[in-house]
Formats: sequence, C-alpha cells, structure tokens
Amino acid sequence: MTDTVISSATREVVIGFNRPFVIIGERINPTGRKILAAEMAAGDFSRVEADARAQVEAGAHMLDVNAGIPLADEPAILAKAIQLVQSITDVPLSIDSSIVAALEAGLAVYKGKALVNSVTGEEERLEQVLPLIKKYGAAVVAISNDETGISEDPDVRFEVAKRIVHRAMDHGIPTSDVIVDPLVMPIGAINQAGVQVMRLVRRLKDELKVNSTCGASNVSFGLPARDGINSAFLTMAIASGLTSAITNPLHGDIVRACMGADVMMGNDPNCARWIRRFREAAPAPTGAPGEVRGRREGGTRRKASGQA
Amino acid sequence: MTDTVISSATREVVIGFNRPFVIIGERINPTGRKILAAEMAAGDFSRVEADARAQVEAGAHMLDVNAGIPLADEPAILAKAIQLVQSITDVPLSIDSSIVAALEAGLAVYKGKALVNSVTGEEERLEQVLPLIKKYGAAVVAISNDETGISEDPDVRFEVAKRIVHRAMDHGIPTSDVIVDPLVMPIGAINQAGVQVMRLVRRLKDELKVNSTCGASNVSFGLPARDGINSAFLTMAIASGLTSAITNPLHGDIVRACMGADVMMGNDPNCARWIRRFREAAPAPTGAPGEVRGRREGGTRRKASGQA
Repeated sequence: MTDTVISSATREVVIGFNRPFVIIGERINPTGRKILAAEMAAGDFSRVEADARAQVEAGAHMLDVNAGIPLADEPAILAKAIQLVQSITDVPLSIDSSIVAALEAGLAVYKGKALVNSVTGEEERLEQVLPLIKKYGAAVVAISNDETGISEDPDVRFEVAKRIVHRAMDHGIPTSDVIVDPLVMPIGAINQAGVQVMRLVRRLKDELKVNSTCGASNVSFGLPARDGINSAFLTMAIASGLTSAITNPLHGDIVRACMGADVMMGNDPNCARWIRRFREAAPAPTGAPGEVRGRREGGTRRKASGQA
Repeated sequence: MTDTVISSATREVVIGFNRPFVIIGERINPTGRKILAAEMAAGDFSRVEADARAQVEAGAHMLDVNAGIPLADEPAILAKAIQLVQSITDVPLSIDSSIVAALEAGLAVYKGKALVNSVTGEEERLEQVLPLIKKYGAAVVAISNDETGISEDPDVRFEVAKRIVHRAMDHGIPTSDVIVDPLVMPIGAINQAGVQVMRLVRRLKDELKVNSTCGASNVSFGLPARDGINSAFLTMAIASGLTSAITNPLHGDIVRACMGADVMMGNDPNCARWIRRFREAAPAPTGAPGEVRGRREGGTRRKASGQA
C-alpha cells in the first residue's frame, strides 16, 4: 500500500496503511494564541522551542509549524521558526501557511523532505503550490475544497481530492506524496460530520489509495469535554483508514486513543508499543522517557538504520 | 433497520442501528470474584444490590446478572438475584448462565421481556434454549461458536451466527430478537482480533441485519491500561456497527468512549446527551444526577410514554 515518507536531516517518518498512526503536533501555531503571536512577531521563539520539546516528549511523531501572524513578515518568521525547531528536535516538520511565499521560505531552509500544509483544489493555488512541491521534492497536504467552497457532500469532496491528486501527477508528484485532508466539520453543527469523514476516508484509502490527515480538533468545536470527542473521532477515523492527524499530543487521552487504535488495527505487533508506554500502573499523559524510545521503534525510523 | 426491544416491568431499552449504543453492566457476576461468590452462595445479596445501583448510576442501560458459582444451586440463586435487582432498579436485565435450568428459573421470575445470555451454535444447546426463548417471548444472545469450537476465521463465525438466526426463525423467534456475539479474542494473543471483529460486526449488520453485543473486556486480557484498549475497541466496533456491549460502566473512560462514539455516529442529536453529561468542567466518571435523566431520554424509554 501507499507509503508517504517525510524526513528531517536524520529521521524519517513513514505515513501509511498498516503502519502506526502518525501524530503531527498542532501547537506551534499563533492562531488564537495572542501571547505566542506577539512573541514570534518580536523575534522571541522561546515558547516555540518549549512547545516543540513538550509535544515530542508527549508522543508527537511530527510537528506542524505555522507563523500566521497578521501584519507580520510571515515568510521570515516561518523560516526562522523552522530553523529553530529543526535545531532542537529531529522529528520531521509540516510547513503550514496559506501564503505561498511563506511556504517557499520554509522549504528553502528546511533540512530533509518536508510536508507542505497545504494546497487546495482552487486553480490558482494548485498552479502556485504544486511547482514548489516538485521543486523541493516535498510532500503536500491536499485540502478537499475548491473555488466553490467546502461541500457538505463527501462525494463532492472526494472528487476535489481526486482532481488535486491527478493535477499533482501532471506536475510529476507521485500519489504517495499527496496526503488528503477530508476536512472535518464541527459535529455540534453538522450531525453527520463524523459519518461523512469516515465514508470519505474509506474512499480515499480504497479508491484513490492515498494517505490522509486532518485537523482533528475542529470536530469538537463548541462542545464540552473536547478530548473525549476528539478521541472518539480519531479512533473511528483510524478504523476507516485515516493514517495521520494534526492534533494536540499534550492531551494524554488523544495519544492513548491513537495508540489504542493502532493496537486494534493490528499495527502494534505484540502490543509492544502499548505495553512499553503503559506498563506502569498509571498512564503517563505527557510522556515518560520510555515513550521516546517506543516512538522511535514505531512508525518512525533513523535514516541511518536502513530499516523498512 | 432492526430494533431489539428489551424491557423490565416499567422500562424499555431499544437496541438498534441509528440508536444510542446500549451498555449492559457486567459486574453482577461471581466469576473471578470470590467474595461475591461466597456471599451469593450464602444468600447475602447486599453486594449484588450495590453493584446494581452503582452501574445504573454510572450509565448502564441494562444489567447482566450471572450466578455461576461452582457447587451452588445456580437456578435458585439466579432467580433470587434477578428478583432482587428488579426490585431496586427498573433497567431491563440480561439473564446470564450456561445452565439451561438456571435460564428457565430466571425467566420464570423475570418481569418484562428479558435478554437471555446465551445460546451457542451447538445442536443440543439450540434445541434446549430456543424453545425457552419462544415460550417466554424473550430475546437471546447468539454466540458464534459451535461443536467445532471458536474459529479464528471471522467468516466461519459469521456462518455459525447465520445458522443460529435461521434456527431461531424455525422456532418462531424473529431475527430482531437475536443479538449476535461475534466473540472477542484477546488482542495481546491474536494480533488481528480487532480487525476480525470489525469485519464480522459489519457483515452482521449489512448481511444478516442483526444487532450485536460482546463481552468487551476480553479484548484487553493480559495488557496494561485495559480501559484504554477497551475504549478503543468499543469505539471502533461501534463504527463498524456494534449496537451493545457487556462491559464495565464503572470505568468512566468506557462510558465516555461509547457516548463519544454515539456523537460521531450521528446518534446523539445536537450532542444533547454529551452536553448534558459533560457540560461541567470535569467528566463525572460515576454519573452525576443529570446523567440519569440523560440516559432516560436516550436509547431507553418509559413504557408508559409510548415514545418511539
């Protein structure tokens, strides 16, 4: 089946069916975080550094890096943040921006093969972003909306995803380097949002044979006990074929749900990762030292090891 | 789709697709509980009473009652336990025994329409248990093993289930009164146990169109942090079509996982049950007073209300 390889200078993460689920830490993002936004705009990256370390310790296999600060020099700040994060951790990164110049600035300084987040099905975006992906040999998140907006019909979203995958091929980008985001709606507003995503993810796996990711936290917008909703969503989406998600690994419930789903999918042989993490009586919500070792033997691998 | 109605004297629970998942409390069972076994054998049902109340408070929609104590008068003890539990709670019961005389003793004293747990595909059991189900107008759990044992092949288990459903029809028992238990194996021993159950539950729903249940805790046998495995299992099985489970509602994680799965399946309109239970900052693992109200408005209903 389809394997998407993302890497830093020294480490590879493989996103794929029949592999442990890949958690992409969502925290390095100034949207809705005023203090972080102000600090990043002023050149203070101490919180970015702390967020990077904490998420990796907690079980993130990759980190999303976003520098979307209004009126700031986003390309420069994003490039700086990426360099900093790569200097303190070896997990691969997702370069996250809606500004093409920022994506390019990030790609220019990135060491390894990045995941670019994202391209939509809008014609102009496709023709701006896909050449960058090809130029830098990166992988890309394809968001299944286009000029007409986000359809509530999962079959329409599937067609948009299909068009992006085919356009990427026209640009010489293999299907394995396109990861589709089915777009997750708030379940509090759209009762069928969960069923829609499960259906769409299953079609992406069975028909398009592409990996998938999503911003998982959106599903619980406006609801109490969001971790519980996010955990149920992720578990069910993994059962349907979701292979990665941008989410918050600092919430122990989320990591536990994803690891439990790996066990149930048969993607944690002998339950070794589960046992390693949870063999102590109490679960370790923010990651025990043993977890870092566990993670390295899972979906991630040292480049040098040559391990498949 | 298929609705299975189980009732006490005053309350109905409906197990069905597109309905909230039904949690059947597993605690009233002396297997592996020496003190409870000794007390029940000696005629002391105080712990049974406490277990009944606690499980209903925690969110159980039904209770399983088992009196399997070696060398004891199981029919008499089971009948006594059922009468006691029915005198203190109005949730419908599952009458659980491997001894046919005990099942009959339980049915004879039960008020309402019971769920009988269980019949297997063994010829002798079929011809002993099914007439009882018909006689008392009960529903029955059909366990998908037979004289040849438990197959590791889910397709073989499907055929056994199909045979029991057809035999029940021969006895005049409608398909809606047969709930199939796909048999859950320990994932620590059988890596594909989760995938097998998901596949089998989906076939039971799509092809046989029957409701399903299972002893969910078995999946995590021998592993640490069992609640996490059980929660992931239940969530994924619900996504595949599981409509009820015999499990431990005293573990708040389990109830939360099932309620989150209801939200994701679109079976908690406006997330009303979720919001009612979790609107306070902290989750209430053993059930707040509001939960009892919430449960009554979910998959369960007062008989008198006539609500569909």
